[in-house]
Amino acid sequence: MADKQKMVDAITSMDEDFAKWYTDIVKKAELIDYTSVKGCMVIRPYGYAIWENMQKILDGMFKATGHENVCMPMFIPESLLNKEKDHVEGFAPEVAWVTHGGNEKLEERLCVRPTSETLFCEHYANIVQSYRDLPKLYNQWVSVVRWEKTTRPFLRSREFLWQEGHTIHATAQEAIEETERMLNVYATFCERDLAMPVVKGRKTDSDKFAGAEATYAIEALMHDGKALQAGTSHYFGDGFAKAFGIQYLDKENKLVHPHQTSWGVTTRLIGAVIMTHGDDNGLVLPPAVAPVQVAIIPIAQHKEGVLDAARAVRDRLAEKFRVKLDDSDNSPGWKFSEYEMRGVPVRLELGPRDIEAGNCVLVTRHNREKTVVALDNLEEAIAQKLQEVRDGLYAAALENREKRTYDCKTIDEINAKLAENGDGFVRALWCGDEACEDKVKELTGVGSRCIPFDGQGQEGTCVCCGKPANTLVYWGKAY
Amino acid sequence: MADKQKMVDAITSMDEDFAKWYTDIVKKAELIDYTSVKGCMVIRPYGYAIWENMQKILDGMFKATGHENVCMPMFIPESLLNKEKDHVEGFAPEVAWVTHGGNEKLEERLCVRPTSETLFCEHYANIVQSYRDLPKLYNQWVSVVRWEKTTRPFLRSREFLWQEGHTIHATAQEAIEETERMLNVYATFCERDLAMPVVKGRKTDSDKFAGAEATYAIEALMHDGKALQAGTSHYFGDGFAKAFGIQYLDKENKLVHPHQTSWGVTTRLIGAVIMTHGDDNGLVLPPAVAPVQVAIIPIAQHKEGVLDAARAVRDRLAEKFRVKLDDSDNSPGWKFSEYEMRGVPVRLELGPRDIEAGNCVLVTRHNREKTVVALDNLEEAIAQKLQEVRDGLYAAALENREKRTYDCKTIDEINAKLAENGDGFVRALWCGDEACEDKVKELTGVGSRCIPFDGQGQEGTCVCCGKPANTLVYWGKAY
Repeated sequence: MADKQKMVDAITSMDEDFAKWYTDIVKKAELIDYTSVKGCMVIRPYGYAIWENMQKILDGMFKATGHENVCMPMFIPESLLNKEKDHVEGFAPEVAWVTHGGNEKLEERLCVRPTSETLFCEHYANIVQSYRDLPKLYNQWVSVVRWEKTTRPFLRSREFLWQEGHTIHATAQEAIEETERMLNVYATFCERDLAMPVVKGRKTDSDKFAGAEATYAIEALMHDGKALQAGTSHYFGDGFAKAFGIQYLDKENKLVHPHQTSWGVTTRLIGAVIMTHGDDNGLVLPPAVAPVQVAIIPIAQHKEGVLDAARAVRDRLAEKFRVKLDDSDNSPGWKFSEYEMRGVPVRLELGPRDIEAGNCVLVTRHNREKTVVALDNLEEAIAQKLQEVRDGLYAAALENREKRTYDCKTIDEINAKLAENGDGFVRALWCGDEACEDKVKELTGVGSRCIPFDGQGQEGTCVCCGKPANTLVYWGKAY
Repeated sequence: MADKQKMVDAITSMDEDFAKWYTDIVKKAELIDYTSVKGCMVIRPYGYAIWENMQKILDGMFKATGHENVCMPMFIPESLLNKEKDHVEGFAPEVAWVTHGGNEKLEERLCVRPTSETLFCEHYANIVQSYRDLPKLYNQWVSVVRWEKTTRPFLRSREFLWQEGHTIHATAQEAIEETERMLNVYATFCERDLAMPVVKGRKTDSDKFAGAEATYAIEALMHDGKALQAGTSHYFGDGFAKAFGIQYLDKENKLVHPHQTSWGVTTRLIGAVIMTHGDDNGLVLPPAVAPVQVAIIPIAQHKEGVLDAARAVRDRLAEKFRVKLDDSDNSPGWKFSEYEMRGVPVRLELGPRDIEAGNCVLVTRHNREKTVVALDNLEEAIAQKLQEVRDGLYAAALENREKRTYDCKTIDEINAKLAENGDGFVRALWCGDEACEDKVKELTGVGSRCIPFDGQGQEGTCVCCGKPANTLVYWGKAY
């Protein structure tokens, strides 16, 4: 059959060209297809299944913390977008405008939502009258549009899928707690399920969400040493409530403004997973979100009993895991490469000799380690291997991040570390002056990513101006 | 506490004003809120939870029949929409046009998808080369936009949520089988899970989807005797493939065109459920999609042990059912009305005397029947009650449809039946001439809904022109 077999497509090496390696993977692992709609993509079944797995886990975590799903319109009238000054300034330059319905020009143009604070505020104003109506803990799974100039699949596209949580609370304290709670939900999800270590922190004022009092973020370090913002959580205070006239009668019968939050993660997380765990053989997927957790490859499948045994194993495993049996006429070697390229965490090989011995071979994707296990306890062995993959991926990502995190005291030191060890996180004190923040970026190329939660109250001097500084900042080149 | 209690809002009687009854329900049961975006609505948590339950069941049925989820862009460039002549003629007059991105005018305007055949076709042309690539069985859960003049929540809105299945096959026969398979999936879902009887049939040519060779539909009869198209499935032949240049090498190494289908259901199904099962006390929800299947109302909850017992019952039932315990300080009477209005299928009452006797009271929403059951076998009793609700709803809806289905031989007979018994389905033979189809509508108000699958090969005369006719048609006034 060798002549009929197509080769598994080669992927550019990461070290040679990381950007090309990335686009090779998203195309060859069939995660996306390009379209004639500039900056927008097709998310193909294998890519969408990763997103569905992410959604399922996150949606469960949101519901467990008391949130309910809703659905707002995709359009925002211009006058509604304009109600909160900072918000409109931040978003208006990058929205898509609908000006015609059928053949008629609209009286007022509508933007396609870039985010939905304004719509939620309009709704809150309708439904919140008394302290008894609070809190409202809402979320929606939708797509949003931002008219980006340069785009890359999953990382930055004109349309992307996301969830946006929006909550409204009686007190500032409750809202601040919510903002932190949801950042922690994101961090737990990234570390536990995506095997991706993150730094939790607050954005500097120059990097806040348009209209927020404070923006919190989780920042991850990609394999190439660039930083990626993996999720954000915003505290709005009562700014939106004031702009939109949202008030409620409190327990003392006084009319007061409530406090709000919003928080979101996007399909960008798929890009983060690719760039955190992938290697020169292709994707490496964390088991929690892998569309296929176990690929079963029969060996010498033409021999009597092999395919029957493989199917029996598949049926058994399908009750607990996401399993695929490949009984196509491609060679085992081709299949090995194919499922490696697709990042399937565990490969199960089953041939006549294995069957006779009551065994099979398990190979873990991230380290290619082979283990012979008894078919008897297969479920247990696979659960253990999947945990090993998750733990191995997390350890490797953490090691990469630690190796690439540089504590620096001066601009020169930053430049020296980056030149010597390549891109990474720079940890350096900052005086709080925006001019210094800009200057660090100008002189070194790394911008402020976040102030980690334990980053206040330090003692030392600003990495830029040398004046006293008590704020630790993570700096990095960002995706 | 009586002074603190708000009343459950009154709902207009169905017989008095069915349209007002409908809008009362969608507002008072908190399914939707209106917005400043004309023709678009907020789907609130209770409404969205119904949709999530529908999605979960349907998505499982789609996956069980081999379909995979994908996600296409929400925009379609004008030139792409224009590629298939009938399609663009059908949709262009009712699309929303994006003309600007940020401050810049676009070189080519984009419409917000009214449906996604054109995008799927562009993608197929990229990925289908050989018979080995076929079939592709895709689906997506998204929202679409059609610039309707008059709108009503769920029934007709400018933006609505739906799923659109899109498949491509090697042969016409396979594609036709798929079209029928998915219509049957919809019919099963409507009858089994929504307790809503449907007529399966083919649309007449004047009522086909723009670009389709044949459109199949399921038609349901609402409580007021109007018909509602609840789902459609389209067979495209190779028309789209030809327009978009999609070809594949078949087993004989010949380059040929594949055959396509698409099929969809929308949030309109929520409107269908309301108008099929609702009554003057509010919503009545089929158990399979009810956000709350059992509402637990403690009686004399201030008495020792009542709330503890109610919580224990809730925790037990929550493992198998969607349960809500209302321990608020509203009176039991208020709660009864509230959960009736919200259509919760089963109410569970639990008071001190019930607890002492080891019992509780179950009340089914659709017929208000009370049953005292032992707490011991509660799970079984509730499962049985939920089945009774589903069966009772189905029987009542079927009875309404049968009572309102009129076999007619002449135009006069149609008018007489409608005048005498009110709106309903008219079953009458048709010669196949579009002029007669139009004239029936003009003279009686009922349009053709579908040709039922067993409606061909009849013997008789056309209800309109009196010439020989062999096609049975269901006629009705449509939502």
